[in-house]
Amino acid sequence: MTAEIISIGDELLIGQVVNTNASWLAQQLHALGISIHRVLAISDNPDEIRTALDDAFSRSDLILMTGGLGPTRDDITKHALCEYFGVGLVIHEPTLAWLRKFFASRGWQLNETNRKQAEVPANCEPIPNHNGTAPGMWFEKNGKIMISMPGVPFEMEAMMENHILPRISSRNDSHYVAHQTIQTYGAGESYLMELIRDWEDALPANFRLAYLPQPGMVRLRISAYGKSRESAMEQIDRQIEALQGIIPEIIFGYDQDTLEEVVGKLLRQNNKTLSTAESCTGGYLAHLVTSVPGSSDYYFGSVIAYDNKIKHDLLGVSDESLRNFGAVSQQVVREMAEAARKRFGTDFALATSGVAGPAGGTPEKPVGLVWIALATPEITLTSRSMFGEHRGRNIRRSALEALNMLRLYLLKDL
Amino acid sequence: MTAEIISIGDELLIGQVVNTNASWLAQQLHALGISIHRVLAISDNPDEIRTALDDAFSRSDLILMTGGLGPTRDDITKHALCEYFGVGLVIHEPTLAWLRKFFASRGWQLNETNRKQAEVPANCEPIPNHNGTAPGMWFEKNGKIMISMPGVPFEMEAMMENHILPRISSRNDSHYVAHQTIQTYGAGESYLMELIRDWEDALPANFRLAYLPQPGMVRLRISAYGKSRESAMEQIDRQIEALQGIIPEIIFGYDQDTLEEVVGKLLRQNNKTLSTAESCTGGYLAHLVTSVPGSSDYYFGSVIAYDNKIKHDLLGVSDESLRNFGAVSQQVVREMAEAARKRFGTDFALATSGVAGPAGGTPEKPVGLVWIALATPEITLTSRSMFGEHRGRNIRRSALEALNMLRLYLLKDL
Repeated sequence: MTAEIISIGDELLIGQVVNTNASWLAQQLHALGISIHRVLAISDNPDEIRTALDDAFSRSDLILMTGGLGPTRDDITKHALCEYFGVGLVIHEPTLAWLRKFFASRGWQLNETNRKQAEVPANCEPIPNHNGTAPGMWFEKNGKIMISMPGVPFEMEAMMENHILPRISSRNDSHYVAHQTIQTYGAGESYLMELIRDWEDALPANFRLAYLPQPGMVRLRISAYGKSRESAMEQIDRQIEALQGIIPEIIFGYDQDTLEEVVGKLLRQNNKTLSTAESCTGGYLAHLVTSVPGSSDYYFGSVIAYDNKIKHDLLGVSDESLRNFGAVSQQVVREMAEAARKRFGTDFALATSGVAGPAGGTPEKPVGLVWIALATPEITLTSRSMFGEHRGRNIRRSALEALNMLRLYLLKDL
Repeated sequence: MTAEIISIGDELLIGQVVNTNASWLAQQLHALGISIHRVLAISDNPDEIRTALDDAFSRSDLILMTGGLGPTRDDITKHALCEYFGVGLVIHEPTLAWLRKFFASRGWQLNETNRKQAEVPANCEPIPNHNGTAPGMWFEKNGKIMISMPGVPFEMEAMMENHILPRISSRNDSHYVAHQTIQTYGAGESYLMELIRDWEDALPANFRLAYLPQPGMVRLRISAYGKSRESAMEQIDRQIEALQGIIPEIIFGYDQDTLEEVVGKLLRQNNKTLSTAESCTGGYLAHLVTSVPGSSDYYFGSVIAYDNKIKHDLLGVSDESLRNFGAVSQQVVREMAEAARKRFGTDFALATSGVAGPAGGTPEKPVGLVWIALATPEITLTSRSMFGEHRGRNIRRSALEALNMLRLYLLKDL
């Protein structure tokens, strides 16, 4: 089964909204072994929609369309679909009943605009939307499937998970390609390529390897084609085992694993606790740690000492260190980590202090310079990094570097 | 001038990477008054690239292509373009010189893989890449422009800003459409629509209005077609002035304004300072505040009291309040805000305490319940919100709600 995605909305074409729906949908289909040919974004325009649908029906078995189903007047997908299929709109009673319930439960009146949400093209099978007011619509044409869904991500996602993916899955009988993503931290793209060159050269002919760099990380995507998903996955497992022998510390996880999840798991497994003291990362390190559900089991908290006075008052960093070495220094970041460990009563503490930019750099301490410390029961480790000029990226890379420092310690020294 | 965007990379089609490049490019072209027809993502496949180029050249004057120019072996765009234009690869000496300098400055050896980055199709004009190793490529065919750029966002962005946008701008002579985005907080899509219905109904025929909902916010995009950008923009300004009279508190900014920037500006203008005390937002509120360059001028820091003991030890929340009312309560969040204000010595302090989920909910305090407090020199305000079930969204909405509380206070009471 081959598929494509059509995303509708002027907001996508003027760059106001990033098309996260398309990547989420692609992930889901990919997990079912369905390959996506194309992802297309077009405007809220009936002609564009018609052309895109003609094209897509000529190439693919499954078309997923999002957007343009809201109650407001700029949303025209439903009318365009009626025209395309040559049908009219009909009231879908179960949807109308759901709308009445949805509005009543919130103490709102069902107005005329909302009532129109229960109208669907006569040839479609409506798909319930438990998180909003616009139902999805399942169309079939010459054995091919076209599904139109709202553009609001969590409405669309619930619809896919509960209704659409199970049905698509049962109808899919394509050949198999298995993928695995390997998450790496600590080696740039070119350096990583050198490290694993011999392994890559020896990959069998039915394999494919892609490098996907991100700030501070490179993801490797390994794909294998096979007679069954199981045989392809087995081959991939063997290759990954070999790769782990070559870059054991650089691989931190697989698929959607994040550094914060991996560190959380290691802390939990070892029954250890963590706190943080942040300057340049300004809460982002704590945010990454606490974005993991259940993190309150091992994470106690943070002092964000953005102001130097706070570094002294709340963390007890010595005035001498601040005066003699400055806030961005090995001495101060070490004192921050040790103080956090003590004040929060945790096994470990991570601290960051750096020049995130764009302003605040000096010749000795340029934008991008970041000190990180890890206080442990035995020893306090520090590291110095030189990142780039982009504030957001410097903040993210500092937080990742700190997490990775803890990860390596938990792997090696516990 | 009409344009389209072609993004190349299997990672886009399996949903591993979100196509932020496309939205950034669309924004930039849009700002020049160039309309984008389509954004297309296709795989690293020469046939797909050829078909997409043929289609795009038949429709548009300008084609921006990203991806597939890295040094690793899965990147095939350059070879596909040679085939498409029927030319060979040639060494571009200035690029080779730049590569030597780039590698030497980092103390690295220039290897054979990197040297290949200096090869470009014979018919293109190379575009310098000051942030990486792969140059961009400018092609012309029958008066139409096609530009191929690396997929790494900051390399592509610098290339666009420094070299490509100025040249495109000087060649563009299309008709004019002006847009303005209005950022709102505090009213859902349907409710906002009711509030501004009369105003919307009275918009002139050359206007268009789009609702772009996000968790907690709705952006309104207003567009007007006109003889010149100036006349269209003037008409928009008049309409926005009228709208401000209808929903003055709900509009918090325009275009790319964020709540954290707006709050930062208000604090700076009033010469006031801020600290935070976070529980359920776990550092995300501090992160939003400190993501604004220069925020250290008005933001002193935060205590992230994820653990109840920390709420007591570092913030001095009373054991009685924690015992009698629980951490997620009006009493505790109030004490947190007041303690932060005092300990950090700031004019204002914001505090959050809630059940982010997915676990931890009870019948009395379900997932999504969030208390927020704002301590000011005069009074401490509190608010209770009931968000949803999604951890990430609850964290974000809580932080936004806190920022908006401070924004409204700064607007009204100072």
